[in-house]
Amino acid sequence: MKRRLRLGQDAVWAVPVRTSVGSYPVLVGAGLLSRIPEFLREYAPAHRYAVISDDRVASLYGEAVVDACGSAGLDATLFTFPRGEASKTRKQWSILTDELLDAGIRRDGAVVAVGGGVTGDLAGFVAATFLRGIPVVQVPTSTVAMIDASVGGKTGVDVGAGKNLVGAYHPPRVVVADPSAIQTLEAEERAQGLAEAMKHGAILDASYFTDLCDAAERLMDGDTDATLAAVLRSVELKARVVTEDEREAGVRQVLNFGHTLGHAIEAASGYALGHGSAVAMGMVLEARLGERLGVTEAGTSERLTEELASFGLGTLPENGFDHAGVLKYLGVDKKARGGRPRFVLLRSIGAVHEEGGWSREVPAEEVERIVAEAATPSE
Amino acid sequence: MKRRLRLGQDAVWAVPVRTSVGSYPVLVGAGLLSRIPEFLREYAPAHRYAVISDDRVASLYGEAVVDACGSAGLDATLFTFPRGEASKTRKQWSILTDELLDAGIRRDGAVVAVGGGVTGDLAGFVAATFLRGIPVVQVPTSTVAMIDASVGGKTGVDVGAGKNLVGAYHPPRVVVADPSAIQTLEAEERAQGLAEAMKHGAILDASYFTDLCDAAERLMDGDTDATLAAVLRSVELKARVVTEDEREAGVRQVLNFGHTLGHAIEAASGYALGHGSAVAMGMVLEARLGERLGVTEAGTSERLTEELASFGLGTLPENGFDHAGVLKYLGVDKKARGGRPRFVLLRSIGAVHEEGGWSREVPAEEVERIVAEAATPSE
Repeated sequence: MKRRLRLGQDAVWAVPVRTSVGSYPVLVGAGLLSRIPEFLREYAPAHRYAVISDDRVASLYGEAVVDACGSAGLDATLFTFPRGEASKTRKQWSILTDELLDAGIRRDGAVVAVGGGVTGDLAGFVAATFLRGIPVVQVPTSTVAMIDASVGGKTGVDVGAGKNLVGAYHPPRVVVADPSAIQTLEAEERAQGLAEAMKHGAILDASYFTDLCDAAERLMDGDTDATLAAVLRSVELKARVVTEDEREAGVRQVLNFGHTLGHAIEAASGYALGHGSAVAMGMVLEARLGERLGVTEAGTSERLTEELASFGLGTLPENGFDHAGVLKYLGVDKKARGGRPRFVLLRSIGAVHEEGGWSREVPAEEVERIVAEAATPSE
Repeated sequence: MKRRLRLGQDAVWAVPVRTSVGSYPVLVGAGLLSRIPEFLREYAPAHRYAVISDDRVASLYGEAVVDACGSAGLDATLFTFPRGEASKTRKQWSILTDELLDAGIRRDGAVVAVGGGVTGDLAGFVAATFLRGIPVVQVPTSTVAMIDASVGGKTGVDVGAGKNLVGAYHPPRVVVADPSAIQTLEAEERAQGLAEAMKHGAILDASYFTDLCDAAERLMDGDTDATLAAVLRSVELKARVVTEDEREAGVRQVLNFGHTLGHAIEAASGYALGHGSAVAMGMVLEARLGERLGVTEAGTSERLTEELASFGLGTLPENGFDHAGVLKYLGVDKKARGGRPRFVLLRSIGAVHEEGGWSREVPAEEVERIVAEAATPSE
């Protein structure tokens, strides 16, 4: 599936993702950040580039990308926004859109999103709707963005009713993932992305799950080789799923394992919990739910709890959590059909229980019981 | 190309439009408005329908559509917004989106846009970005929406820098055009749409252009048969172009005839001029530009002026217009590549001059001269 290319002096892995409107590669390799101009020229030739970063990543990488473009004879301008999930709003999307228009970016322009998941989603949505869509190049610099967010073409912003409820599918022309960027993150930030890697293993690949557990320490330290291996395997797994089902009508739903409860836990915390932390808790609870319903192998939830602990993840809050809030948010989950939340349940580590569809409704009282038990602090 | 169907008792014409993600029909027939539920069931089955209309069309047709859905056992809710182009904003888009979310519309919902061009664009953009896209059914009730806006999948809103600068391509599941709705419009509103019909004739079909001129009086009176014939022919012509080039990379550009100057004239008037009126003036001036450059047959501009007059269109303002404003807006035209506006030029009535591409840059001084001459009131 992946292809090893030799572009210039360094090895680059290219994982193809096919969409309804064509195909794009996810390029993975150490040192690729310094070679953005050649990838822009090859995959997204444009008259002008709008490089979008948050105000922290701008000084780490965004400015360097703009400078490198300048040296390579490409016309690039930097646009920044305040760091954090609080910027993933329609308001910030409007501000950036107007800034690009004011700067004279037009149809022959392209967006280069340099940063974490928030930047990819926000800048991707700007590109998706700018003059009804201009090309976007995704340059993820966080673990979660490399491992998860940059593959699949989802873009969007949060609204009062929930996260990611407004957005568009807008596949990038190319994704450039340089695992050496992970070194500038805190371990806690790495963990947020590794939660999604663990999810990929849990739903699709038991041996990848084991590999991640074995490499936990190196991954948490930001070791480039270990990170490269994880990014490559996660991207391959996710690309396979997304290629098969771009619009989440079928198998793509498996990627929501841990997310139905995870989103609700995240929302009920007022987004004080990181997405990866919430998803890790969601995986533990949804595995417990599957065991209770007799579809998930006994002991799965316990194993998840143990292994996620190596990443500082999956432990339910000691003082319990907002039980009523979680149940309230479950009612507005984006994946709901006809108002009832749906769950992806494991058969065992590495495989989803797929009889009767990739996701299913479960009896409301079972969900309530699992949430209530988790919400009660253990003795 | 078109197919005559017999659905129920009345004749329905179906014109197929092919897009990168499938095909949808434009259904044209007198009396179709009373049969919306059967078309929703066939082309856009959904758990719930959000019917979106402006506050005027709501009482004319929107409420009736919701009632008919109710009688047919479909769950439909009406959402309204203040009438007029001033509602085509990101703010109104946000308000509608939040109202749909609050009402519990989810992924298994669909939007039904009942109204004119503003409704189609605004409700279409709501659907395009709602949970990253839910189906939309377009039910155009104005001449311009039937003849032009409902075919092609363009959705969007206006921003400070110009009209339609933010949006998405989001093809409808079906378009239902009932020419008898035209009777509730003023003649002036009909003319706005007939300007686009005249454009279709001017760029693609000389005999259609002549037919429209011959039927001018009946069309301005809102005669259903004459309107049906025009809607059908315009939809066929536009569908052919859009099927060939969904994203305006090639031949679809011909639909911009009259629009480069038209948009600038419209913007410079502070949108006091209707879109059709501005486009009619744009066609006259762009034909004059083509004649000046030697690519358009002599006399074309004069013929356009004469024939458009039957619709009360194409006459330049007697007191001149904002010359500097038009040139300023030309600089920010959405179709510009590299900051220079591009023009579609006729060879003669019924054919675009296509050597060197469907659109072209022209010397800035020629554009300035044409605009300056038009801006000066004649003696």
